[in-house]
Amino acid sequence: MIEHGTAKRDARARPMLGANPAMRRAWLAHNTGVVLDAIAQTAFTPEEVRGSVENLVGAVHVPLGICGPIRVNGEYADGWYHVPFATTEGTLVSTYQYGMRAIDEAGGANTYVVADALDITPCFILRDTRSALALAQWLRTHLAELAAIAAETTAHGHLTDVRPHVFGRRVFAQCVFDTGDAMGMNMTNLAVDRVCARVREAVECERHYLRCNYSSDKKPAAIGLFRPYGKEVAVDVTLPGDVVRQHLGVDPLELMECSATGRLGSMQAGALGVNAHFANGLAAIYIACGQDVAQVVNASIGFLDMELLDGDRLYVAARLPNLVVGTVGGGTLLPTQRECLELMDCRGDGTARRFAEIVAATLIAGELGILAALADGRFIEAHRQNRLLAARATTGSPAQT
Amino acid sequence: MIEHGTAKRDARARPMLGANPAMRRAWLAHNTGVVLDAIAQTAFTPEEVRGSVENLVGAVHVPLGICGPIRVNGEYADGWYHVPFATTEGTLVSTYQYGMRAIDEAGGANTYVVADALDITPCFILRDTRSALALAQWLRTHLAELAAIAAETTAHGHLTDVRPHVFGRRVFAQCVFDTGDAMGMNMTNLAVDRVCARVREAVECERHYLRCNYSSDKKPAAIGLFRPYGKEVAVDVTLPGDVVRQHLGVDPLELMECSATGRLGSMQAGALGVNAHFANGLAAIYIACGQDVAQVVNASIGFLDMELLDGDRLYVAARLPNLVVGTVGGGTLLPTQRECLELMDCRGDGTARRFAEIVAATLIAGELGILAALADGRFIEAHRQNRLLAARATTGSPAQT
Amino acid sequence: MIEHGTAKRDARARPMLGANPAMRRAWLAHNTGVVLDAIAQTAFTPEEVRGSVENLVGAVHVPLGICGPIRVNGEYADGWYHVPFATTEGTLVSTYQYGMRAIDEAGGANTYVVADALDITPCFILRDTRSALALAQWLRTHLAELAAIAAETTAHGHLTDVRPHVFGRRVFAQCVFDTGDAMGMNMTNLAVDRVCARVREAVECERHYLRCNYSSDKKPAAIGLFRPYGKEVAVDVTLPGDVVRQHLGVDPLELMECSATGRLGSMQAGALGVNAHFANGLAAIYIACGQDVAQVVNASIGFLDMELLDGDRLYVAARLPNLVVGTVGGGTLLPTQRECLELMDCRGDGTARRFAEIVAATLIAGELGILAALADGRFIEAHRQNRLLAARATTGSPAQT
Amino acid sequence: MIEHGTAKRDARARPMLGANPAMRRAWLAHNTGVVLDAIAQTAFTPEEVRGSVENLVGAVHVPLGICGPIRVNGEYADGWYHVPFATTEGTLVSTYQYGMRAIDEAGGANTYVVADALDITPCFILRDTRSALALAQWLRTHLAELAAIAAETTAHGHLTDVRPHVFGRRVFAQCVFDTGDAMGMNMTNLAVDRVCARVREAVECERHYLRCNYSSDKKPAAIGLFRPYGKEVAVDVTLPGDVVRQHLGVDPLELMECSATGRLGSMQAGALGVNAHFANGLAAIYIACGQDVAQVVNASIGFLDMELLDGDRLYVAARLPNLVVGTVGGGTLLPTQRECLELMDCRGDGTARRFAEIVAATLIAGELGILAALADGRFIEAHRQNRLLAARATTGSPAQT
Repeated sequence: MIEHGTAKRDARARPMLGANPAMRRAWLAHNTGVVLDAIAQTAFTPEEVRGSVENLVGAVHVPLGICGPIRVNGEYADGWYHVPFATTEGTLVSTYQYGMRAIDEAGGANTYVVADALDITPCFILRDTRSALALAQWLRTHLAELAAIAAETTAHGHLTDVRPHVFGRRVFAQCVFDTGDAMGMNMTNLAVDRVCARVREAVECERHYLRCNYSSDKKPAAIGLFRPYGKEVAVDVTLPGDVVRQHLGVDPLELMECSATGRLGSMQAGALGVNAHFANGLAAIYIACGQDVAQVVNASIGFLDMELLDGDRLYVAARLPNLVVGTVGGGTLLPTQRECLELMDCRGDGTARRFAEIVAATLIAGELGILAALADGRFIEAHRQNRLLAARATTGSPAQT
Repeated sequence: MIEHGTAKRDARARPMLGANPAMRRAWLAHNTGVVLDAIAQTAFTPEEVRGSVENLVGAVHVPLGICGPIRVNGEYADGWYHVPFATTEGTLVSTYQYGMRAIDEAGGANTYVVADALDITPCFILRDTRSALALAQWLRTHLAELAAIAAETTAHGHLTDVRPHVFGRRVFAQCVFDTGDAMGMNMTNLAVDRVCARVREAVECERHYLRCNYSSDKKPAAIGLFRPYGKEVAVDVTLPGDVVRQHLGVDPLELMECSATGRLGSMQAGALGVNAHFANGLAAIYIACGQDVAQVVNASIGFLDMELLDGDRLYVAARLPNLVVGTVGGGTLLPTQRECLELMDCRGDGTARRFAEIVAATLIAGELGILAALADGRFIEAHRQNRLLAARATTGSPAQT
Repeated sequence: MIEHGTAKRDARARPMLGANPAMRRAWLAHNTGVVLDAIAQTAFTPEEVRGSVENLVGAVHVPLGICGPIRVNGEYADGWYHVPFATTEGTLVSTYQYGMRAIDEAGGANTYVVADALDITPCFILRDTRSALALAQWLRTHLAELAAIAAETTAHGHLTDVRPHVFGRRVFAQCVFDTGDAMGMNMTNLAVDRVCARVREAVECERHYLRCNYSSDKKPAAIGLFRPYGKEVAVDVTLPGDVVRQHLGVDPLELMECSATGRLGSMQAGALGVNAHFANGLAAIYIACGQDVAQVVNASIGFLDMELLDGDRLYVAARLPNLVVGTVGGGTLLPTQRECLELMDCRGDGTARRFAEIVAATLIAGELGILAALADGRFIEAHRQNRLLAARATTGSPAQT
Repeated sequence: MIEHGTAKRDARARPMLGANPAMRRAWLAHNTGVVLDAIAQTAFTPEEVRGSVENLVGAVHVPLGICGPIRVNGEYADGWYHVPFATTEGTLVSTYQYGMRAIDEAGGANTYVVADALDITPCFILRDTRSALALAQWLRTHLAELAAIAAETTAHGHLTDVRPHVFGRRVFAQCVFDTGDAMGMNMTNLAVDRVCARVREAVECERHYLRCNYSSDKKPAAIGLFRPYGKEVAVDVTLPGDVVRQHLGVDPLELMECSATGRLGSMQAGALGVNAHFANGLAAIYIACGQDVAQVVNASIGFLDMELLDGDRLYVAARLPNLVVGTVGGGTLLPTQRECLELMDCRGDGTARRFAEIVAATLIAGELGILAALADGRFIEAHRQNRLLAARATTGSPAQT
């Protein structure tokens, strides 16, 4: 049947939008011969995910492991936290766990929410540079009015700045918001749509687009180095030499030298930021906690640095300028995701900065864990043992890949 | 109880590694007061995910929607395919769906696997530049020997090149592999570990690290523009003007102009690559199909371009140089993930390039969908309606976020 | 004599600092056998270049050609200007000349000084992130005091902002100045030195450095995309189709398509900005006018874009965010350099923005000239003829290189 | 007279191309009122610069100081060399001089020409990706034929590789040359023009451009991190602690820490490469030696790193991947420029790599000089004294700028 691809050509016309998940699964089984039995098991009802997905057929089950507890000394997160990781990458949880233990022994990671903002950038296209500069000036002088218009669409987000960037006859109007506990992309879209409508009434303009890539949401771009996107979090921790040796299995100097070589590698590769694997922890936590996972791209832009103080203490610091997180709305409301957030006391209003601080502390733990493994060669041993486990897990299929 | 954080301080000492998921959940409930009932529901057994996660407590259920079918005219994918999206971002599936429909009407997207390789880069630290250059030369002349050593660890991965980059007394030895249908990170780690051991026997060297960030796995770096990482896939499709108007609701010129402004936005933002939201489709498919989700960071580096041909046809092309995917091992073996891959006939040996082609075609559909929505203002309308749906989905909690 | 290198080993000890140029030339002739007769000819006296160079031996004579006049419609430059090019690259002057002629026929290039600022960034190193954040806060609240201190060192430069960026225990304190007509690097160095001294008095701090690469003076860095460095100038011009055809020899569409391909090339290459050869014009003018030539590195970061309006008019726009120029002090005072500036009425107080506008308009002319040559193949013909000229110029040495 | 700008409107029509320098100066004096007396003094005849500049009016005299001698231990440069700096930036020569002295005491800088290549990239535009990939394949299989065609245009340059990069319907065909002692831009342009003609005969193609920005000549782009452009030179030197203290006035640890902070600054600023002021030395030497000064943009992309060995020795290394230099043809033939090259025994055939090694060693000296000055605060003192000198140099004009 499936001579070309997996879907019958005629099936295209069949509308799926009116169907329910069971009907869609039946229809897919009919068309492709694939029965979605496992996917049919969901911890949520179709009603609960309306607004989160279209053409629902069920759920993907991502294994959830628990890391921690990690001690966080922040303004918003203060104490010990268990951190949920949704991942299929073996050794990931244990790598972060090693770092968490060392941080705990060192008294915890200090975290600071340095900034909190989200921007999206509509683009207005005018006649020429002169008129574009005039619009830029208009925007600068009408912030209060535009903020009031934005406020009509949301009680939680506030337009705090409009920064016009002129190139040719275009104005890239970077609209900066404080989004509170929501991740905020939807609210800012709606608010900026109104702002644009007001601009179009006031200023003659050929056309405009609500978004134009300048803010680079979910895209790797240098702008991420220069302005906070979501929460900007700073973290540091000073590890006594004995803690490093006992809990990470290496000397502080060895860890620092490993980190230094990684820094040279990142520089040679033209990296935005320098870190070993922020993205791993981010992806696992974002999936677990109902975040917008594609924003791992932005959030992975960040810096880790290590210094040896007084010959034996290891000073470790991170700068995470693009930690986009939310604890209300969207995926955070789904049953399993909600439980993950509750585990960290990060569900609902007033918890987004706490969540950001826990994530940031966790990422620094992950760096310690992987650098320690690389510095003393345990890295490969952990992965080798893990492969054996995986081999045993898949009956009949030998491990050699 | 939970005065500081969500975990009791004393609980830290309690070992969790020997426990089973139910014991861990009970322990977490005792310590944090949070009961993980939804998370307890899993479509897999603990044995099935051994090797994929540590400290297992259950599963996160990510809503799964179906896109398509999309018509793909590739060497490995040839026909119509349904594409599974695991996401909590409303309107995402329907945005891609619009683009798929237009591509289908235009006869399908043409896809080409241009390259297929994965590299990791150990770093050797020697006495000085002279000795580093000598090692670089040694590596160049011992490729066959090193490839044979690598081959002892894996039947599926082949070391095809070693490219030494010297900076100071360090040799960044970029080891390039053909990984077949596995994503390949684990196999290359193991193989390169052996390669390093051989190098250390042959050449006097102060120390080495198995990895040093140069290959920038899961990190946003310019190197992603210059060498294939995973599958490099090229895609193009020419859409007749009428197809654009009927299925995307805008004129080809409007679509192209919207794309052009996005390109200027990306350039001003210092982006690596130019695209509207590759990362969205990537994240949704990667979660659904058991891929290593953090690699969305690399994979999101890519280019989309549009040109108007003969005044009315829209030529759309994408270059995706970093599409890291796998169809064997790891997360691809889990029940729900396996079903997702089977839906596209992409499970197991001989299917990784097909999978890459389907993903690439899907990403171009997503670009068409979002650019069309931005070009005619539907973007915001779709999100507004979605918010209403979401509001109704969450009983008791008013929509205003 | 010169067995190794060109200098006698023993000569090292000979102090040259007390010598005059003639003595130094004699000494070099004695040591290397090379007589610097041409270099001995200088249009300046040793006294005139004291403060501009050490160990003076004479002058390098760089051929000077004249471009223009170009018509500039700016706030500061309004009229026709001849632009001096010091260069040894044949065809450069004529390439720019073509573009100037076309711009002239189109009514001139419109120029706008969008911003005017120069920053240098000292780095303060404290105990930890907490204390670094405290210093950042201190800096934000003491701008007026610090500006007053800076004002004691210079009457022309004003400290307008201090923007602290915290990473770990370091504060990168970006000090932004308005430098008036001076390029301003020296004045800002002196002012920031005082600012640092005041900070050290007020806040306990392990150490500090006056500069730390963050401002990236003379270095290619993404920061150049995001903040003005020197003058940020916007330029545009709309060329009627007939002007393009008559004076540039191609159709507007051809020119635009050539530019579009160059844009794709820049994007693929990971360029900071997009332009064909801003650096060529910049280097030639900077040498001619006594500017700090190494700042061509910054200044070359910029954007050119072309659009076709109404099917036949070519809209050309440039954004030059890093045009560091000065018209007082330093190299601008030397005889030949002064004459070059006078030619454009850009010598001394009140002329720096005029100079920036003329440079910006000139760069857009250069883009038109080279793109036209590339679009119709004249590029290579021009260089071929030039090679013949060069061949005839060098007697005895055949042209074939 | 000069109501608008400095040039009379009517003067535009006056052809200058047939004129000689004196006539042009007279004409400019008539039109602008500015007499170019100093510029009229030239160490070259108009015939000597034919092919190097158009619309000649005279020369700009750039002050020339001498640095060194620096000891270079290279394959091509072996011994002590005096290095000419054409600059108007006070303290530059002495900053480099400090570093040279320290390097000399440490036994010299070790230099290695790691690679030697120049590429330019024509772009071919075809019907679609399929045909573009076919051309890419054709190019890969016709290298020998294309190399033979290129060889017909030049005896000194050899086409060694063609690397096709496909994006959409475009093939960016990176043509790599060995250019011998010429800088090589002109020869490669001519050769690639022939190569393109051959491609157009063989393959149906909509159009092509000789250059498309991909090679990023004179443009700041990440490609410069990944392939050699001109000479790639590696340099290292190990300085005993006493040499650092005695000749640079700081402890090795202090120097290294200053360098480390600069590295963090560069990383935060999104720099291509990490160095303090490579561009300064490059610009000064390039002007002195008749190089193409705009290529300082490429050449300034490079890396410096410092490490402390055994607690007291300072290991310093640089990687300069884009050192575009030439010692034959072009500006190297002019009288003053020729003398500068002769001073280093770098004039004519067989000397380009020697020149590259001397430049590279010089740049590392400049880094040592400036970092030492920054590390102990001498930086600002040197500039302050220099300002006093400059003030005395300009009679009547007080120093305060």
